[in-house]
Amino acid sequence: MEFELARQLAQENSTKIVLFVIDGLGGLPHPETGRTELEAAYTPRLDMIARESACGFTIPVARGITPGSGPGHLALFGYDPLVYNIGRGALEAVGIDFDLQASDIAARGNFCTVDAEGRITDRRAGRISTETCAEIVAELQGIPVDGAQLFVEPVREHRFVLALRGEGLSEAVTDTDPQAEGAAPLLAQAITPDGERTATLVNKFVEDSKKVLNGKNPANALLLRGFAKRPLWPSLGEVFKLRAAAVAHYPMYRGLARLVGMETLSVGPNLEDSVATLRENWDRFDYFFVHYKYSDTAGEDGDFDRKVTKLEEVDDHISDLVALGPDVLMITGDHSTPAVMAGHSWHPVPFMLRAPNIRSDECNMFGETALLQGSLGTFPAREALTLAMAHAGRLKKYGA
Amino acid sequence: MEFELARQLAQENSTKIVLFVIDGLGGLPHPETGRTELEAAYTPRLDMIARESACGFTIPVARGITPGSGPGHLALFGYDPLVYNIGRGALEAVGIDFDLQASDIAARGNFCTVDAEGRITDRRAGRISTETCAEIVAELQGIPVDGAQLFVEPVREHRFVLALRGEGLSEAVTDTDPQAEGAAPLLAQAITPDGERTATLVNKFVEDSKKVLNGKNPANALLLRGFAKRPLWPSLGEVFKLRAAAVAHYPMYRGLARLVGMETLSVGPNLEDSVATLRENWDRFDYFFVHYKYSDTAGEDGDFDRKVTKLEEVDDHISDLVALGPDVLMITGDHSTPAVMAGHSWHPVPFMLRAPNIRSDECNMFGETALLQGSLGTFPAREALTLAMAHAGRLKKYGA
Repeated sequence: MEFELARQLAQENSTKIVLFVIDGLGGLPHPETGRTELEAAYTPRLDMIARESACGFTIPVARGITPGSGPGHLALFGYDPLVYNIGRGALEAVGIDFDLQASDIAARGNFCTVDAEGRITDRRAGRISTETCAEIVAELQGIPVDGAQLFVEPVREHRFVLALRGEGLSEAVTDTDPQAEGAAPLLAQAITPDGERTATLVNKFVEDSKKVLNGKNPANALLLRGFAKRPLWPSLGEVFKLRAAAVAHYPMYRGLARLVGMETLSVGPNLEDSVATLRENWDRFDYFFVHYKYSDTAGEDGDFDRKVTKLEEVDDHISDLVALGPDVLMITGDHSTPAVMAGHSWHPVPFMLRAPNIRSDECNMFGETALLQGSLGTFPAREALTLAMAHAGRLKKYGA
Repeated sequence: MEFELARQLAQENSTKIVLFVIDGLGGLPHPETGRTELEAAYTPRLDMIARESACGFTIPVARGITPGSGPGHLALFGYDPLVYNIGRGALEAVGIDFDLQASDIAARGNFCTVDAEGRITDRRAGRISTETCAEIVAELQGIPVDGAQLFVEPVREHRFVLALRGEGLSEAVTDTDPQAEGAAPLLAQAITPDGERTATLVNKFVEDSKKVLNGKNPANALLLRGFAKRPLWPSLGEVFKLRAAAVAHYPMYRGLARLVGMETLSVGPNLEDSVATLRENWDRFDYFFVHYKYSDTAGEDGDFDRKVTKLEEVDDHISDLVALGPDVLMITGDHSTPAVMAGHSWHPVPFMLRAPNIRSDECNMFGETALLQGSLGTFPAREALTLAMAHAGRLKKYGA
């Protein structure tokens, strides 16, 4: 929904809305059985919910467009992902609880391995341990940056965040990461004159980092990409009058949630943890975003069977979530991650909405073929929140 | 897809995409049998393709809007027909291989018959032969036009193109064609002050043409409409990184293809010719638009049975096209032309996409009722190219 309309129509009440995101939920048929991961999984509880729900599919960004995690989630939060863009660096920084300020510039960093000629042989430095990453980062933190403050923060494995704080910094700077092995790291270049000082600082930092990284094996060089500032967006509270909370374990999803004004709750890695966190905080919020990661990881690994198992794991715990009694429960994904493609895809994402005042349909199973019978059809993911708000009685009538 | 997004995400690879347009494909039920033309046709090969495809319907312009050939095709080429407009005159000129330059003004011309009072009795002058048309046109070509260069080119039967080349010409000029019999041809009028000189030149040309046409029977007058310049649009190569070719026999479709940057290949009038042209040029292009006209002509003539026969003719040759091995094959139409309406209509157009990574569905027949079971649903025709690009692996992921 357009935010101006939402501001005009949203109203508060005592209902609870839960958005349960099964990351990478959508799939494609297994070549031997013709059934998708979700169809192959034994999910009697999800199927029961489908019987009680209005069903359909969401399109995260646009037909044929494969979304990253950012656009996929922002759409489900009600934010048009073609309008609400976020640079990779800012997303990464916000996702590790780094307090990125409005004028800071952040970049996503990779430690990598280069050969004697300086050419990249491994863009991920053999996925060094998070501990090793933290040790190197601590050394880099001491590099002086003229007229600005430097932050280097470890993320996971070979990944880190670089942030610069100071006057007159700009995100108009090209990546040093050529995103290809065999090539040498690039010099950062200003995209507009505004970016010149930042490019100079970045190149000086990279040069100085060589003294620190020299001889470190395998992480003997670094790559930077996605220089970006933190976007300043209207919040879910401001636009939709929702007190919103995120129940997400992984940093990136916490970061995304924070960008739209959700409070990020402390939660462990498993579904039991999610349910426990929800239960503890049930009274404090109107809207909960609950994130489940492992279906996507299995899909990305091309592991059909493991994705099936991970979906069955959701089924094992979904009743505990339903038992909390949300007035509106949406179960969907941020995008499809078919195991047969071993990556994100553009295919519409299974969606069901369990709430009062739904129009019943003949979809009695939570699976890609059955969902074609759903009463919701295929619709833009950014409209899911409006639909939830409507079923929650949180939207006034438009016009007299 | 928005072109800015396409420019950002499109990538090249070695796949082949074929768009096969069965002109006027969509139909309506025969009042006696309840089956559409496509449902009445015996099309076992198309039905087999439907089983292997993701199926649905396209909406050419917008729900309820009946498109002309221009908007119907432009949408399938990925160009929003509400944004990418082309004047009739420019389309007609480009469609006969006339080298319309950026500042030229073109109009569609009809020879017509007028009575002694100058009133139109036949807007098409009894559809004079193309040869007669060419003879008259040659005479008109000699009319002097003050300060501009005149081109008069025959098209087919009673149709011709008028083009003016020179400084300061404008398309802001009204038609001389009243588009009704019983009325007299109109004077061209400037729509804005810019158009005044052009209107004067046009009216002078029409006046002078009377000396040439006087006594010619039945083509004793002429009508001009759709004054327009050639639009300058981004090309499929530039936006989508596609080397695109058109396999179309009829001038208008060749003209449309050229406007979006396709190379127009030499091809005969029949489907055998189309397949032969495809085969000869298979290695040179990434994307082929193949046009089949006769289904539309039969529909326009209100000839249900002939439209059925023409669709069966497609079925007879479709296997030769499939045998070329396109990675992505789209079979659809530019609009519906139901024989019972004897004209174009707004009804969604049957669409199927045969490609890797499709989500299977229960549509096992290429017909309007069966297609309702398709996994693609009903979607804007301008999104068909995005979908094809996705299935061809020609689109990068959007966002991190």
